[in-house]
Amino acid sequence: MDRARLITLDWGTSNLRARLLGDGGAVWQTRVSAGGGILAVPERRFADALSALCGDWIDEHRCPLVASGMIGSRQGWQEAPYLDCPATLADAATRLLPVAVGAGTDAMLHIVPGLRCVGADGQYDVMRGEETQLWGAALAAGRCCVLPGTHSKWAWVGARSAIERFQTHMTGEFYALLTQHGILGKLMQFGMPSAAAFAQGAQLGLQGHGTLMHTVFAARTAGLMERLPPAELPDFLSGILIGAEIGGALLSGAPAGPVALLGEAVLCERYAAAFAVAGLPTSRVDDDATTRGQWQLGLQAGLTGDSR
Amino acid sequence: MDRARLITLDWGTSNLRARLLGDGGAVWQTRVSAGGGILAVPERRFADALSALCGDWIDEHRCPLVASGMIGSRQGWQEAPYLDCPATLADAATRLLPVAVGAGTDAMLHIVPGLRCVGADGQYDVMRGEETQLWGAALAAGRCCVLPGTHSKWAWVGARSAIERFQTHMTGEFYALLTQHGILGKLMQFGMPSAAAFAQGAQLGLQGHGTLMHTVFAARTAGLMERLPPAELPDFLSGILIGAEIGGALLSGAPAGPVALLGEAVLCERYAAAFAVAGLPTSRVDDDATTRGQWQLGLQAGLTGDSR
Repeated sequence: MDRARLITLDWGTSNLRARLLGDGGAVWQTRVSAGGGILAVPERRFADALSALCGDWIDEHRCPLVASGMIGSRQGWQEAPYLDCPATLADAATRLLPVAVGAGTDAMLHIVPGLRCVGADGQYDVMRGEETQLWGAALAAGRCCVLPGTHSKWAWVGARSAIERFQTHMTGEFYALLTQHGILGKLMQFGMPSAAAFAQGAQLGLQGHGTLMHTVFAARTAGLMERLPPAELPDFLSGILIGAEIGGALLSGAPAGPVALLGEAVLCERYAAAFAVAGLPTSRVDDDATTRGQWQLGLQAGLTGDSR
Repeated sequence: MDRARLITLDWGTSNLRARLLGDGGAVWQTRVSAGGGILAVPERRFADALSALCGDWIDEHRCPLVASGMIGSRQGWQEAPYLDCPATLADAATRLLPVAVGAGTDAMLHIVPGLRCVGADGQYDVMRGEETQLWGAALAAGRCCVLPGTHSKWAWVGARSAIERFQTHMTGEFYALLTQHGILGKLMQFGMPSAAAFAQGAQLGLQGHGTLMHTVFAARTAGLMERLPPAELPDFLSGILIGAEIGGALLSGAPAGPVALLGEAVLCERYAAAFAVAGLPTSRVDDDATTRGQWQLGLQAGLTGDSR
């Protein structure tokens, strides 16, 4: 059997996904450790966790590994210092952090650095993992790209797919906190999607992002006044928050062309609907960008040549 | 011993406070049932809870009772329909909802209606309890009054202390959710106030209220980048949120004179500091306004005359 060229790890806070890549970055195998994110690894024994998931690959193929995500954070295996924006894939390829996998192998794990930028407000922003995804998507200069999630990322792309600047919006976390632990969730009934209530909320959030802590209170009064049934309140709130995210992010400039949406399909559809309410076109980017980015990083760093 | 003229109840979601008032509204006695709010009353047996706290007053003085707060909500004793804004104390005095206290007494409880208004965004806003506090404060026409809290209320006052319009901001709840259940709390160390970090946050919130879900992420990066020590992050976040509340509320018009702050002293000081960062003067209103408002309501409704 041929030797594989690279093992890629997408190792975040909650999950771990490993892939075995052959020539040209072809995906030979995928293994997922659901709930195997860095916070779930006991006593930070990352080498053991890695060995448990794909020790056989490492032994058999003796190829290098590339990892991106929170594994490079202070809570991860080893901290990979942030690269400052603007940053290209070529910049990152020269700054991979090598870590010995250990335990009877000379295999090396190369951790992709996260990115850092300073916003117009003078505050730092950070990402770990999304940079690899963005580079893998190989977006054209001038594109604005949104990666929806617990912490949504907005990124603006320059020449050579450089990430010029980006912004984090804690939209998914706000939704979870307000519905699971807050008063707004008490009037809600979950499980029945409502596109109409979502669009109504998105309209409200797009206009009311300047007073978000007031605007979301509409998700309570709409219930109290029986303007919306309990089953429609979750999507009404979701619309308010995503609308407010979009309304706020657009303050720093309208996108030149269609906004690129990168991530999980259901969430991207939700964002596309909110952008449509805002009158802005979107296009979906294929979701396998992380692996492509990791392959390109390994290639540019000279890791994938001859793995024997 | 003289007969009392009125028993007032400030009966909210979390707490119950009862007062026995004599001639002219003089406070004779105060009793507090900490944790005796409407959500803590088993099987909604409000008559029993009332009797346990001040059944002896009712038996001895046989005077009427006036109650304000969430006791008039759908989850309370009986729902007192909302009054629409603008609303004066005189309007509310004609709309008190009488409820028989029952259990061997002919005493009547009069529930003060909450207020409702429709914002510029077409959404309803509601309050229960704060209207009595505002009327008790007898504010001059043109004043803007802020009642800080879990759900802060901003009220704009018209002629005859009418509440022209108001806005709820869920600021206190956002702070609790983000620090107790969210990722921002994980880097924080609580218990050491920092006026400087609060002011820094307030400045940021005043400017960044349009992108709140992004702006609060600075409370994470300031920790990650060691710009602020863990002990200063709680007040930094508190500043961001209160600053964002103020920045957002001012979108609907700058206050004509000093903003009136009404409520608990420590929280009012915090708001005064944030308003100072915004360059806006404030003045503190004495905190016993609820009882004064309830006395005035009883007086105008003709309840306090002869209680025998």
